[in-house]
Amino acid sequence: MSAEQRITGRTGILFILADPVAHVVGSDRLNARFAAEGLDMAVSPLHVQPKDLAAVIGTLRLLQNVRGFGVTIPHKIAVMPLLDAVTPRARLIGAVNFVRRNPGGRLTGDNLDGQGFVDGLAASGIGLAGRRVLQLGAGGAGRAVAFAVAEAGASALFIHNRTAARAQALAEAVGAAWPGCAAASGPDDPRGFDVVINTTSMGMHEGDPLPMDVGRLAASTDVAEIIMTPALTPLLVAAQARGCRISLGTSMLDAQYGLVKQLLGIPS
Amino acid sequence: MSAEQRITGRTGILFILADPVAHVVGSDRLNARFAAEGLDMAVSPLHVQPKDLAAVIGTLRLLQNVRGFGVTIPHKIAVMPLLDAVTPRARLIGAVNFVRRNPGGRLTGDNLDGQGFVDGLAASGIGLAGRRVLQLGAGGAGRAVAFAVAEAGASALFIHNRTAARAQALAEAVGAAWPGCAAASGPDDPRGFDVVINTTSMGMHEGDPLPMDVGRLAASTDVAEIIMTPALTPLLVAAQARGCRISLGTSMLDAQYGLVKQLLGIPS
Repeated sequence: MSAEQRITGRTGILFILADPVAHVVGSDRLNARFAAEGLDMAVSPLHVQPKDLAAVIGTLRLLQNVRGFGVTIPHKIAVMPLLDAVTPRARLIGAVNFVRRNPGGRLTGDNLDGQGFVDGLAASGIGLAGRRVLQLGAGGAGRAVAFAVAEAGASALFIHNRTAARAQALAEAVGAAWPGCAAASGPDDPRGFDVVINTTSMGMHEGDPLPMDVGRLAASTDVAEIIMTPALTPLLVAAQARGCRISLGTSMLDAQYGLVKQLLGIPS
Repeated sequence: MSAEQRITGRTGILFILADPVAHVVGSDRLNARFAAEGLDMAVSPLHVQPKDLAAVIGTLRLLQNVRGFGVTIPHKIAVMPLLDAVTPRARLIGAVNFVRRNPGGRLTGDNLDGQGFVDGLAASGIGLAGRRVLQLGAGGAGRAVAFAVAEAGASALFIHNRTAARAQALAEAVGAAWPGCAAASGPDDPRGFDVVINTTSMGMHEGDPLPMDVGRLAASTDVAEIIMTPALTPLLVAAQARGCRISLGTSMLDAQYGLVKQLLGIPS
């Protein structure tokens, strides 16, 4: 946080709801960006247990200097029925990660994960329009990424998941929402794809197997991660060694800042 | 706030509850002090309407990374029945201005205004032990100051108030709590007093009359204010011109920092 940020009664207050909370650093990232732009906003994490979520959300409606709040594990799905409205993309994804508090206390939920990921790719020089994408993983983060990849104009999205039925279900949902994108479940073979995206947690812990066979990666294939720690996963290291363009998981967070401002109605 | 303060999931979160909220700057003062000492704590104001106080307090119990909260106008009295315990001095004063959130959510209220004021006097070189004190005003702030002045060992405390019955009632309560201090209501004549304390709001707004006849001030009489804006009130300017030692209202806030840390169990 820069020396310019000062939290007073005029500051727009934001929170990040999480359980556990100790690992949360998104508040610091957002505060640094707000301070750098001279915006009078401040973000604090709140440690909220699942049993208390409804009560906390009810109180956040009442706090008139609160502008909104981020929602992270384990609250992204449970928060939805507690809000007044959610955006179509959050509805599709089935999860909310940021909520705008409107004057009067009305709460609008959005999901910035997928769009943040796509914007992060763009910031790394990786476009999606008309391209063939292989996505590894069909979990919560994978859902957000898949819809955003299709929305960004990918011509094809193949989803590989350990439990194939889950990949199949996600592909069908994406294809129904974005008929211009040929979505299907498939194997983890990267040959013939323009972009490979890892949305599994493989690479987060030392000793994890690689999420796919990197020996099949062509130098022309772009490789992206959603894992943030470590920033350079074994997959990205291997992809770089083969000459691929890469995008770090942290790019997604950086890109979400602009989306948070947009959701809160703060002029850019 | 210094460049060192960063708000993460490990940060101890504090609030200041107020309505209205825009004028609140105590959060910034506390944050600056925490940052200067390298303490991982962050304070944000919360705009809480009186009708919402009970709900907000109930939720603050649930938030596990919240360490406590300040309470200011108009919540200092209303908060009392919502807490699990209040300190004897808060009970005497009849108001709470800071609450400790204990692990598990139990809330303990204290009132640091009076002790902060007395500590602020001491920091300005003004002692109270064995001294005769004239206090102007018997409102909410006056109650806090009066008990603390008696507790600090003043030999006599005379209280002047526009509504004399209020001064009388406060003097009786102070005398009952601190029999060693001769407490009484009386006129606003400073002759014969060692210390004069203004706890009225006179001097806050341009054109306010002086809260007493400064022509009767001896150079040996110390003069203290609780008004913080302006820092140098007309009373203090006049007292200085007559050679009196003075203490600013802001001294009280500065001194409260140490008391907040003590209440929260943060080692000094």
